[in-house]
This record gives sequence, C-alpha cells and structure tokens, in this order.
Amino acid sequence: MRLSYLILLGCLIFITGKSENGYDLWLRYAKLTNDKKLAEYKKQITSFRIEGSSPTLSIASDELSRGLLGLFGSSITQNKNAGSKGNLIICGRIESPAIKQYLQNTSASTLGNEGYTIQTITKDKQKITLIAANEDIGVLYGVFHLLRLIQTEQPIHQLAVTEIPKIKLRVLNHWDNLDRTVERGYAGFSLWNWHKLPQYIDQRYLDYARANASIGINGTVLTNVNANANILTEDYLKKVEALANAFRPYGIKVYLTARFSAPIELGDLPTADPLDQRVQQWWNDKAKEIYQRIPDFGGFLVKANSEGQPGPQNYGRTHKDGANMLATAVEPYKGVVIWRAFVYDNNVPDDRAKQAYTEFKPLDGTFKENVLVQVKNGAIDFQPREPFHPLFGAMPKTPLMMEFQITQEYLGFSTHLVYLSTMFKECLEADTKTSDQMASVARIVDGTIDKHALTGIAGVANIGTDINWCGHPFAQANWYAFGRLAWNHTRSSEAIADEWIRMTFSNEEAVIKPVKEVMMASREITVNYMTPLGLHHLMGWSHHHGPAPWIKDKHRADWTSVYYHKADSLGIGFNRTATGSDAVSQYSKAVAAKFSSLKDCPEEFLLWFHHVPWDHQMKSGRTLWDELCHRYYEGVDSVKWMQENWQSLKGKVDKERFDEVTSLLALQYEEASIWRDACLLYFQTFSKKPIPSTLPSPKHSLEYYKNLTYPYAPGIKSEW
Amino acid sequence: MRLSYLILLGCLIFITGKSENGYDLWLRYAKLTNDKKLAEYKKQITSFRIEGSSPTLSIASDELSRGLLGLFGSSITQNKNAGSKGNLIICGRIESPAIKQYLQNTSASTLGNEGYTIQTITKDKQKITLIAANEDIGVLYGVFHLLRLIQTEQPIHQLAVTEIPKIKLRVLNHWDNLDRTVERGYAGFSLWNWHKLPQYIDQRYLDYARANASIGINGTVLTNVNANANILTEDYLKKVEALANAFRPYGIKVYLTARFSAPIELGDLPTADPLDQRVQQWWNDKAKEIYQRIPDFGGFLVKANSEGQPGPQNYGRTHKDGANMLATAVEPYKGVVIWRAFVYDNNVPDDRAKQAYTEFKPLDGTFKENVLVQVKNGAIDFQPREPFHPLFGAMPKTPLMMEFQITQEYLGFSTHLVYLSTMFKECLEADTKTSDQMASVARIVDGTIDKHALTGIAGVANIGTDINWCGHPFAQANWYAFGRLAWNHTRSSEAIADEWIRMTFSNEEAVIKPVKEVMMASREITVNYMTPLGLHHLMGWSHHHGPAPWIKDKHRADWTSVYYHKADSLGIGFNRTATGSDAVSQYSKAVAAKFSSLKDCPEEFLLWFHHVPWDHQMKSGRTLWDELCHRYYEGVDSVKWMQENWQSLKGKVDKERFDEVTSLLALQYEEASIWRDACLLYFQTFSKKPIPSTLPSPKHSLEYYKNLTYPYAPGIKSEW
Repeated sequence: MRLSYLILLGCLIFITGKSENGYDLWLRYAKLTNDKKLAEYKKQITSFRIEGSSPTLSIASDELSRGLLGLFGSSITQNKNAGSKGNLIICGRIESPAIKQYLQNTSASTLGNEGYTIQTITKDKQKITLIAANEDIGVLYGVFHLLRLIQTEQPIHQLAVTEIPKIKLRVLNHWDNLDRTVERGYAGFSLWNWHKLPQYIDQRYLDYARANASIGINGTVLTNVNANANILTEDYLKKVEALANAFRPYGIKVYLTARFSAPIELGDLPTADPLDQRVQQWWNDKAKEIYQRIPDFGGFLVKANSEGQPGPQNYGRTHKDGANMLATAVEPYKGVVIWRAFVYDNNVPDDRAKQAYTEFKPLDGTFKENVLVQVKNGAIDFQPREPFHPLFGAMPKTPLMMEFQITQEYLGFSTHLVYLSTMFKECLEADTKTSDQMASVARIVDGTIDKHALTGIAGVANIGTDINWCGHPFAQANWYAFGRLAWNHTRSSEAIADEWIRMTFSNEEAVIKPVKEVMMASREITVNYMTPLGLHHLMGWSHHHGPAPWIKDKHRADWTSVYYHKADSLGIGFNRTATGSDAVSQYSKAVAAKFSSLKDCPEEFLLWFHHVPWDHQMKSGRTLWDELCHRYYEGVDSVKWMQENWQSLKGKVDKERFDEVTSLLALQYEEASIWRDACLLYFQTFSKKPIPSTLPSPKHSLEYYKNLTYPYAPGIKSEW
Repeated sequence: MRLSYLILLGCLIFITGKSENGYDLWLRYAKLTNDKKLAEYKKQITSFRIEGSSPTLSIASDELSRGLLGLFGSSITQNKNAGSKGNLIICGRIESPAIKQYLQNTSASTLGNEGYTIQTITKDKQKITLIAANEDIGVLYGVFHLLRLIQTEQPIHQLAVTEIPKIKLRVLNHWDNLDRTVERGYAGFSLWNWHKLPQYIDQRYLDYARANASIGINGTVLTNVNANANILTEDYLKKVEALANAFRPYGIKVYLTARFSAPIELGDLPTADPLDQRVQQWWNDKAKEIYQRIPDFGGFLVKANSEGQPGPQNYGRTHKDGANMLATAVEPYKGVVIWRAFVYDNNVPDDRAKQAYTEFKPLDGTFKENVLVQVKNGAIDFQPREPFHPLFGAMPKTPLMMEFQITQEYLGFSTHLVYLSTMFKECLEADTKTSDQMASVARIVDGTIDKHALTGIAGVANIGTDINWCGHPFAQANWYAFGRLAWNHTRSSEAIADEWIRMTFSNEEAVIKPVKEVMMASREITVNYMTPLGLHHLMGWSHHHGPAPWIKDKHRADWTSVYYHKADSLGIGFNRTATGSDAVSQYSKAVAAKFSSLKDCPEEFLLWFHHVPWDHQMKSGRTLWDELCHRYYEGVDSVKWMQENWQSLKGKVDKERFDEVTSLLALQYEEASIWRDACLLYFQTFSKKPIPSTLPSPKHSLEYYKNLTYPYAPGIKSEW
C-alpha cells in the first residue's frame, strides 16, 4: 500500500502537469464523481469479453479498457473465459455463437452494416450486457454508445437499445489545401501532413478517426472542393492510401475532390469534355488506379462550374453529363459521386438564391444511381440564418445530400461561442410541404419521402492543427452535434448539448444548466448581433470577418453586401416575392405563400424575402428601424449574459478551459459590439432615424468601423 | 488508503490516456525510477521557501512544486515559516535578509542580472539549499538548474554552483510570417495566432516562454527577417505588446524585424533614405510608440539589401548609415539594433562566399555602440558543413552576433535525426588565429577577445504548431542545445546530449548510451549522405528538399548547384584559393595558408576550397571519386546503424515516441538513399568512373531522380 501511495502521488503529476488542453475532446473519460452511480456501474460491469478478432475489434477492446479504467478509476480487465463469473460485457458479431445464444430473437437483418444492439440479459444471476452487430464497426459504435451512457451517468442496468443510422453517408468535408492552409479554417492548419506521408502516420490521424467513430461519422473528404488536381497523381494517391489504411479500422472511408479539368492538367488531354471518350477513359483509368490502392475508396466530391471552377459547362455539357461520367468510372467499385449544387454563374444577373434550383431541378431523374447532389442548407451560403434550400423537395428522383457548414465562416470564426445544432435542426425540421406526408428537409435527405436507399449528409469540418482541434472549446460541440444528428436527426439539440457538456466538462448540474442555457441561446444571439430579421451577407470582403454592409461595386454584384440588403431611403431587404426576384416561387405553394406574405412571413426571414419600409410595424409594436436596433442591442447584451453565466462556473471546471473561454467570450463581446455599431450606423445613413434613446450610442463613427482592417485573417483560400 | 488506491487507479488513466506526445519537451518531470537516489533527494529536500514576491518568483515557485511533485512522486510543499525544520530550499534575491544571513561572503556583483548561485549550507543539523541571484530571473534560472540536476540524477548534497551567462543576448529568430506560414519551418505553422491576439493568450505562449527560460534563452524575434512592415502598425503592436507581457516574467524580451522601407509603406514618405530627416523622425516616433507599449522591447533585427530586401544601399547609403539610424531611434530606451551580415548583391559576380566580408569589414568601427552585426556561422548559408565565417575575427571593433540555424533547412527538415550541437561547437571552437590569444569564434562572439560588453547569439527557431513543437522528437534536442550553448559555449555536445536524453527519455544507461551514440554521430552521417568532403548547396530548388546537384541556368548563378560544385571532366570543387576566387584570403594568414594547401586543407573542407581532380589521392588511399562514393554509401549505411540502435530501445521508451522515431528513421533512410544515388549518378556523368564494385548500384536512373518532385514542400516563404 505504501508503494501504491507513492505511485498514486506520482500520478498526480500527470494530472497537474497534463492540462485540460482540449485534445481529448468528449472522450476524456474522467473518473465519475458521483460515488453512488459509480458503485452501481462497477457492480454492473466486472469484466468484458470481445468475441472475434479484427483491427476494429481491437480498437473496441482498447476503447472499453481505456474508457472503463478512466470512468471507474480501476481497471476492468478483458476476460477471455466463456464461462466467466460476475457481471460482464460481451461484444461481438451477432453471428458468433457466444452472442447468438443470448440473442435468438434479435433480427440481424434490421441492423444493417452499421447498426448495433445493446441488451442487458440476466442469466444464472449473472448480468450480461451484450453489444452486438452484424459487422465489427457496429460493435465499435455500440462500445462508444455504452461508454457514453456511463460518461453521462445514465442507467445501464436494463438496456434494450437498437441503433441504426438514419443516413448512409455521414461525411466530413475538409476544405484543406495541399499546402496545408484550410479554406475557411479557423483552428490552425490542415491535419494532413502531406510532406511526411505516406511513411509517417501521425498519432493525430488515429485520434481523429477515433473521435469520428465515436459519433458515427463514416467518411471524410480530405481535400478542398476548390480542388487541386495534384491529389490525383500517383505520389499523392500513395499518401491518400496511407490515410485510408489508418482510418479503415474506424469505419471511415476516404473520398477526394475531383478537379474537373484534371484530364488536361494531369493527362495531357486537350479537353475535359465529359462526352469525349479519351476523357472518360482517363477517369476510368484513374478510378481503377485509386481502387487498386484503396478498395473501399468512397468516391469523388465535385464542385464544378461554380466560382470559377472548371466543369462540364465549359464544353457545353450539363452537370448531369459531368456527374454521370465520373459515376461510370467509380461504379464498378461501388463508389459514389457527390456533385455539389452550390453553383452560380459569373454572368447570370438573376438572384443568386435562385440559381442552384434553376440549374438542377430540370436535371432531376437524369443522374446515375450512384450520384448524390449535395445541397447547402440554404440557397445563399451558410449565413447565420437562411430559409431552407428550395431544392429540398424539388428533386424527388435524386438523392439530395445535405451540406452543413460546421466551420464558422460566417458565425464568428473560432472566437465566437455558437452552438450550431439548433441551426442544423431548424433546417432539418423545416416542412417543405412538397408531399402529402410531412416532408421535412430531414425526411427528404434521409430518403424516407422519396424512398432513396443512398442517402448522405456532409459537414464542412472545423478541425485543424490547434491542440484542441477546433480553436474554440465550444466549437468541438459543433463537430459532435453534426455527427450525432447525422446518425439520428430526430435527436434534440438540447439532448446533444447535455451529453456533450457532461462528457466534456462535468456531470454536475451546476455546470450543465448554465452551459446548456448558453449553448441553446447562442446561435440566436449571434443572428441578432450579426444579421437579424432575415438580413444576410453583410460580412467583410474575402476573409468574411467582421461586418461590412457597405461593400459594393465589386466585380461581381452578388459578392457585395448591398446586393443582399438593398437598404435605401424607403426601407431594407431583398424583395424575393413575385414583385421582385420571385425566388419564393421555387418553394412549394404553401411555403411560397407564407414567405410571400408580409404578414405571415416569419420575422426571422422578413428581410430575406421582403423590402420593408423603415416604419413598418413589427409584431413587437416597434417600427422596423427600432426593432432592428433592439435586435442588434439585444444580441450584444446577450453576450454579456453569456459571460456572466460562464463566470458562475469558476472553480467548477478546470482553470485552463475556464480562462480560455473567459477570454474568448470577452473577444466575442468586443466583436459583437463592432457588428452592432457598424451595421446600425451604416443602415442609419438610409433610415435617417435615431437609435432609440433607451439604447446607448455607438462608441465610434461609421468611418471608424469602415476603416477597421483584418490583414492576414485566417481561412482565406490560398492560391495554387 | 482505500480511497487513495482508487484515486491511484483513477490516475492511471491519465498515464495511459495522456500519451507521450512530446509537448512536455525536456520538462516532463517523470518520477525518478532509481529508488536509492530518490530516497536521497527526498531526504535532502523536505520543503522550500521563496523569499519575496513577483510574477517571476511565482513562476519559480510553481516550477519547484510541479517539478518536485513529478520527480519525487510526492508533493513538496512551500513552507513560509522562516524558522522551519527539516531540509529545505530557500530561493530569493541575495539582498533579502533570509538569503543574506547565509551568503555573507558571496559577492553579488559578480553574478550580474542573470547569474545565480546555488549553495548547500548545513546549519543546526539542517541542510539548506540556497538559490540566490541579484534579480528574480536569476532565481528562476537557478530553480531550473536545481530541477535539472535532479532530473538527470546528479548529486545535490553539497552544491556550490555559480552560473553566469557567457553571452548577453541569447535569442531565437522566428522566421514567422503574419499569415502564420514559417519560412523554413518544418514543424507546422507559426505559434503566433495574430488573429486572436491581443485578447486571447494561448497557453502555448506561456509554455513556450517556460521552455526557453529553462535553458536561459532571453529574447525572441517574433517575425521573419524577410520582414513585413505591417508588424509595425498600431494594430499589430497591440498584439506584440500582449505577447511581450506574457513573456516578460520568464525573462524573455521581444524583438521585431524592421522592414527598411516601412517609412514609405506605413508612413507615406517618398523615401526610406536613412539620412533623410523625415525618415529618421519616422523611426524615432515609431520607436517611441513601441517603447510606450513595451518598455523593455529588445530592439530591431534587420535584413537589408539582401535577396531583394530594401535597405540603405537603395539610396546610395551604407549598412552603417541604416543601422545607425535605427540605433539612434532605440538608443534612448536601451534598445539594440541587430544588423545581419547575410548580404549579397544581385549583380555582383564575385564568389558569394566573399560578399559579406567585402561589404562589412570596411565598416568596422563605424557602428553605434548599440549595434550588433549578426553573422551566420558560415559564409554561404547554413549548409550541413561550412568553414567558419571569415568575418569572425575581422571586425574587432564591432560586436558580432552569431546566427545559427536550428531549423533544418538544409539538414533534412523535420524528418531527419540530426543533432546539431556538434555542428554549432565545430564553429564555436574554430580558431580564427586573428589574435595572439586563442581567438576561437566563441571567444570573439562572447566578447572575450575584443572586450565587448554587448554580445549576442541567435538561433533560427525550429518551433511550430506541431504538438511536439519541433516536428521530430529529436529536433527538440537542437532547441535545447542552442539554449545551453548560448548560456555557456564551453559545454560539450556530449554532456548536453546526456542531459537532454535523461530529461526527455530516461535515466537508464541502456537508453542513454545508444541514443547518445546516435546523436553524436548523426550530423557527420548527414554530411556524408548529403554533401561530403566540402561539397555544398546541392539541394532542391526553392524548397531545398532533397538533392538537385543538376540545378543550373537560373536567373541567379549563385542560386544554382553547379555554381558551387563546379563538377567537370577534370574534377570537382570550388577553387577559392588565390588561383580561384581567393576567398581564403579573407581568413587570417595562418588559416588561409592551411585552407589554401591541397595537402593541409582538412578533407571535410577539401571541395569547399579546391577544384580537385577525380583521381586525386585521398588520405584513405582512395581516389577522390572512390572516396566520394564511399562517403555517400557510408552515410546511408550509417542511417541503417541508427535504425538498429533505436530498435534496441523497444520497451525502454514509451511506445508513442518509439514508433514515431522508428518511422521517421525509415523515412530518413529512404531520403538518404535518394541523396546518395542522385548525387553519385549525377557526378558520375562528369567523372565517367564506375561506382566501386564493392558498393551496390543505385536503384534507379539519374532521370528518375531528376524527375522527383516535392510540390507543396513545407517552409517556402509565402508571398505577401
């Protein structure tokens, strides 16, 4: 005991020395502090057993050992004896005899490739917790599930869980360039150290895969949608292969972005015309080469004919021609093509919100079966709030893959605390009214409405080389929430926040309550201080940091702010009704009618769809101008409220993260104030009305805010 | 005891969960495994006391607590009682009464601002270890010293240590750009997250400062010598101020690089002529602005009129004019100007090795007293091996600051294990023979020879955002060795390696011996497989990765490889004797005579100074060509020996770093083989001789090696 006491104190250095730097994400496995629950869990589980062997099952076994050791504070050993005593966990494939004997009545067929079941069975006074699945990856998912239940102090004495993902492809999109800059990345630089690959496998690659597996993400697109053809060269494919090998045991497939002009750049062809046989052959050969290295390669993600990227239209062909050519190339290997609907023409003067629908709806039904069309949640570009994209429900014959942005390009980079789950859910739950059934966006994406087997959801990653992965400790919650919703979009944002807080900070109610309140309110707060009432696209030029509603006269009208807010002496907002751009007509009749009506249009979308007079009376009784002022002030004041709430946690969470979030919230407050003051002072030049006297005056002049610059702001696309 | 047992096991997760990812550098404070020594140390130290209070002394106190807790495995508490019992450490300023009573005979005047003394005193059967200094930073240095003694298992029962740094300015040069790319950085990106500064102080900044303080580094130049004027704007100076505040308690001063044309770019002046009064005023004002924010700002580092950078010569002025103008600006605040001698003219056709001397020697004695001229160790550019720079000893009236490169621009990036201390020492110990005394480079740099009070040494940092700071676990040793040598250049490379291995890996002889052997041999091995026998500048274009002896016909002759090796049908090497460029004449007569003589010239510099016939007989008895072949092969074979040595450590060091180094050594072997084969096949086209039959043949053709490309290799200067 003396020895163990010494060792114990030796260990303390690891606690004091190794700080809570955020690297461990939601997988900290900190020892449970609730003694009663701890005792219950320990009674429940005295050992575990893994049936079968594979790299994935080894990971499951390691995770159980590591997780239970951490949570229980004592090691739970793996027990290989079939007839072992005590209460235990048995993990394995349903087909293995040791599992089968207990699960005669479980229908394996319903679980699919990734689903799993967790069942508590009592036999001969022994309690057995079974984690079973058809495939090893399901077993691993089940292990993470059980560990999560314990991490969050949920009861595990009578489990009867069956989990099957609602969406098939649950994919991160990394906008990572080969020089390791990350377009719209605010957490350092790209994880992929191409220079040291393929030989050197950074431990971080494995930790990344593990974190993704813990939330059910099963694919990763390694490269930027603004693609670089070099990734398809032999040298780089060797590197991709090494990453694919590292990720495979975690159930994660690798995808790449395909630069449409690659046959010219790499293949010395004079054209990239998708109907040219040489081009088709080049892609067929390239697919063959890739699949020889990576038999489970996921497929290609393509941004074509958008923002200057090459595409089939360069050759007078359509998106269908381009997508189907690539789909043909990967079809023999069961690969998919994910074709982005985020397109807008340099030369089309029409409302940019309409262009994706205009181009893609006519193509519905023309794509090959292994093509998904990836549609952003809204029709502009990941703004703090957008109405759902009109393509959802408009292309029933095509699997539409959701594209969310986890990285906070327009939501405060990695300095603002914004929990995005509520934004994701707002879109997923929106009723498109395109069917007799309840046709929510989620039910379109998950294939329910149109009976698609191939379904997908993508999140533009917020992950980089920062030690805490995401730059802001709370940005980790957005990665987490994306994964959890991708698996099951019916989960509530609150439940997800609850889990995440418990795993990331503490199971103490005094922590959970204030943190959850802050998280749940945070996105609306950000909308208020950035773009309230349906305003959008007011951000700084190019880097997209900070407010710049005054941006105008650029080479593209739809890259300016004035194009979107259209403030003038009469009012503010983009008239997208029939008297304006008529973008509303792209929605179902019922939805269009609602958005078109100045009266019925939800106020949060008011200025998205209407140009509204400054004196328009709002539901609050205030004029539009006064309401706008109140919203901006409310947004900033709410950041103060967030700060106060956070301060209540002093001493209840570790000092390192407490201090970190404290200073980030102070920075958020400062930046929120700049948003408010800059926008109101600018809009005031049109409204000619005073800021209500009950509200304090902006600190500086409009000129001051216009002169703020942010050189070398992170996340700008590098040139190649 | 039951509780502690549970806690003990709880701690284990921190050990298993928190891996040896290298973040802790040489400050791991792992519990001592030698029980006998541990018991002795614990008897020796039962508590400690800090006299006085300041941010620096708080850091000293925290470090002692943390260090002793880790090393002892039990907490040593701070005891504030003056008359406390047991054996203790007392730390504080010499002037404080509690210290003074024991140290009546110690002359404070000899210790200076940074020195310290550690004395063991026995009184009333109490053993007291005193750590005393004139300033708080000396106390902190002393604390790190004592902890290092324990970490490395040295005796501490009768200490009588007095340490004073031999060189005054011990500075890291970060070639960090404002966009966070790092010129010649191979460990990720810049630590300085400018976007989140000044509000957000990353914990990493403090950990960086702590690591530097632990080895006595007292300055950091934050920005690239290829300077960006924006760093001198108010917005950026606020950020610099925040970093300076964070570093100050660790004894680290901040310096900036000054872009010579800043008065034009920022000040709207039509000129940057150093003799123009408006320009002088602009710099005076800028210095005042900086010192108002940062009263202990170190000063400016300047690269002028070199590689396209602006400088005084643009206006027909000299380096003296430029340096003195800046020196005048910072003089009132005790700042310094560090003016780089690494200059070479675009248009001068003379041997580049001669240019720095040619330009700077005539200026000796003309610089103001607060100017140092910073000279690279060799006259070309941080090659694997260069003879010492001829300026050392040639400018007795000017303090010459040494510039070493810690980042491995020409020594295998962060994939090759190369311990640079032996290279640093080779230069420091070189005898310039410019004085009657023993005028080694070190004694010129440290001011001994020419009686300079202002002295300095700089290391181009190898630090980035990689979790282990330096990319390669062993690259940490080069940061460490630089700091230790900067403090005291008489330390041996072997002693430094010994310390570092013990602190970083283990005190076990079975670890120390093989690792030290590998480290001590590593630089010579790299010279052999890259540039043996005095060859230099054979590396790839621009990114400097891999071999490219074939580079020719570029817009600058002296950026090609053929300019340096001059291989032809007769022989190989650069004739720098009187019959050639006569660069030897820049050395003292004795040194010049030695280098000039084909017979006396050390073989490691042979081809640096001589164009030598392929059949020239070497000391080994072999012809030059055969010797060249043998050296290249020996270099590569020695990497295999390094691998074998490393494998002997399996199970003796942690798995994470063992695996990491294993795969990096494999990569090093691969790249070393490419160097050997590419260089020999290329030189063979001139020698027309076979590779000796006893040596295996290269795997591929010369064309194969010429066609290897390294797109997006790290460390290339970004454009701004």
